[in-house]
Amino acid sequence: MNIDMITAAADRLHGTARVTPLLSSPALDALAGRRVLVKPECLQRTGSFKFRGAYNALAAMPAEKRAKGVLAYSSGNHAQGIAHSAQLFGVPAVIIMPADAPQLKIEGTRSYGAEVVLYDRGRESREEIGDRLAKERGLTLVKPYDEPQVIAGQGTCGLEIADQAQAMGVTEAEVLVCCGGGGLTAGIALALQDRAPGFTPRPVEPIGYDDTARSLKSGQRERNTSEAGGLCDAILPPTPGELTFPILQTLCGSGITVTDHDAMRAMALAFQHLKVVAEPGGAVALAGALFDPTIQSDTVICTISGGNVDPQIFAQALTRM
Amino acid sequence: MNIDMITAAADRLHGTARVTPLLSSPALDALAGRRVLVKPECLQRTGSFKFRGAYNALAAMPAEKRAKGVLAYSSGNHAQGIAHSAQLFGVPAVIIMPADAPQLKIEGTRSYGAEVVLYDRGRESREEIGDRLAKERGLTLVKPYDEPQVIAGQGTCGLEIADQAQAMGVTEAEVLVCCGGGGLTAGIALALQDRAPGFTPRPVEPIGYDDTARSLKSGQRERNTSEAGGLCDAILPPTPGELTFPILQTLCGSGITVTDHDAMRAMALAFQHLKVVAEPGGAVALAGALFDPTIQSDTVICTISGGNVDPQIFAQALTRM
Repeated sequence: MNIDMITAAADRLHGTARVTPLLSSPALDALAGRRVLVKPECLQRTGSFKFRGAYNALAAMPAEKRAKGVLAYSSGNHAQGIAHSAQLFGVPAVIIMPADAPQLKIEGTRSYGAEVVLYDRGRESREEIGDRLAKERGLTLVKPYDEPQVIAGQGTCGLEIADQAQAMGVTEAEVLVCCGGGGLTAGIALALQDRAPGFTPRPVEPIGYDDTARSLKSGQRERNTSEAGGLCDAILPPTPGELTFPILQTLCGSGITVTDHDAMRAMALAFQHLKVVAEPGGAVALAGALFDPTIQSDTVICTISGGNVDPQIFAQALTRM
Repeated sequence: MNIDMITAAADRLHGTARVTPLLSSPALDALAGRRVLVKPECLQRTGSFKFRGAYNALAAMPAEKRAKGVLAYSSGNHAQGIAHSAQLFGVPAVIIMPADAPQLKIEGTRSYGAEVVLYDRGRESREEIGDRLAKERGLTLVKPYDEPQVIAGQGTCGLEIADQAQAMGVTEAEVLVCCGGGGLTAGIALALQDRAPGFTPRPVEPIGYDDTARSLKSGQRERNTSEAGGLCDAILPPTPGELTFPILQTLCGSGITVTDHDAMRAMALAFQHLKVVAEPGGAVALAGALFDPTIQSDTVICTISGGNVDPQIFAQALTRM
């Protein structure tokens, strides 16, 4: 993994992925006691940053291989990224999703023309189902984070953060990134190392699913005790990625954990002051930026990594205003 | 009014106003049966396009005049645009708001440091209150739409629409604009006339407050019977502006009216597919783009003019999904 893979990804995504703006609000600055800049990847195609990595992985694949179709496991955002990318390339996509994924994400994935195969997280193995389908149909698996071209695609978000924040005069900042398997965090970290060495990436996770924060502390990949049931469905991996963790270990500051309540408050504040829709897992970095006591820098930058949230959950978050 | 005033406004706003993106979603295209491009001015500073005109008006004012302070009448979006612009220039702002304006807009205006004077729409005259305060304190009134520098500022949104849509290969389109007094519509119309002559602007209003549509039909400025009580509080003027109406008459296609129900559905669809927050009055153009039977063009472009909506109303809109 290196910066050249990320700039190559930026070339592949140019004109296809959206360049999301960098938002701010005096009210959020006042609340945090520092300048807060927000990268709303919920405005990316398919409603999350995952489109970047998914599209780049498909674009980088040999055409004959891609033509046979692609396969992904995902609770929803990577699913939609792969489904929409496959649709744009005109190739088949099969997505294996947990039956308890948010309804909006299941419908969203189907709306991009993908075949959705639901499985029971408790009783079935998505790997077994995936292996069988891949063999039967010649599909290529695109992993959600432990895949170099996916990490490179997510890194394009870091290139934009570096350019946009530096154009605003920012030279030093903590950059808080919503962290599941670590693909976005690793990609952003690699981009910032090259383009904005005064920016320090820090992963943010929900309490109870803080495998990355604990792993950064212990120096080895720790596991979460549960993979399901959390409010922040987008970022509940079993453990940091094999490829992503060494990158995080080298380039990131310490991890931050936030409560579900603070994630919901951050959703309400993004509604009120930024006018964007954040899903719970997509709001943890903003929650960290606003409420975490360990932040030191005058400017804090954070991602809103996705906005694919069922309306009932969103309405519930609005009651936290 | 001419294009040079709009390009001068763009220079004044450069680096201060946000260049909002042009969003789209395959689901909205499918629903409309044509390509739908959305200009989310809810992402503009202060949560609506009004910041463009307000900031331009203050920037264009002689410094000594501006230093004494500014005054505005507004139900909320122009209020916040003026309040934040005055804050950025470090000058006082007094905003006269109806006591029944959305709570979020009153609080938002105060949060930008403005003095808010509430009045009773039924029993008091905002003009009398304003005249008295202006005389006492030497404040300059900045009207919400019948003011050339305000129209020029709103026109910068039209320059961006022309550039962004043409970069996507669009050469012909109906451009639907949420229309109150007509400042945004007139500004966009003037910009498009110069930069994208294949684009036809059309004002969109809520049923019951369709003064502009009726005026375009009759050829004279018609009045609304009520100025209050509508869901779409942002766009309930008494009648089209003196300055704006002749521009609309020359440059716009026929007006479109939408129901409150369709405005609420458009809010829910913007939540689901674009991940942005639209207020009712800000969603009427998207409602028109999706549901109006008179649209002919292969591509329809629409503004989401603002996102300053109380959470209770927004939660109610989400039940329309």
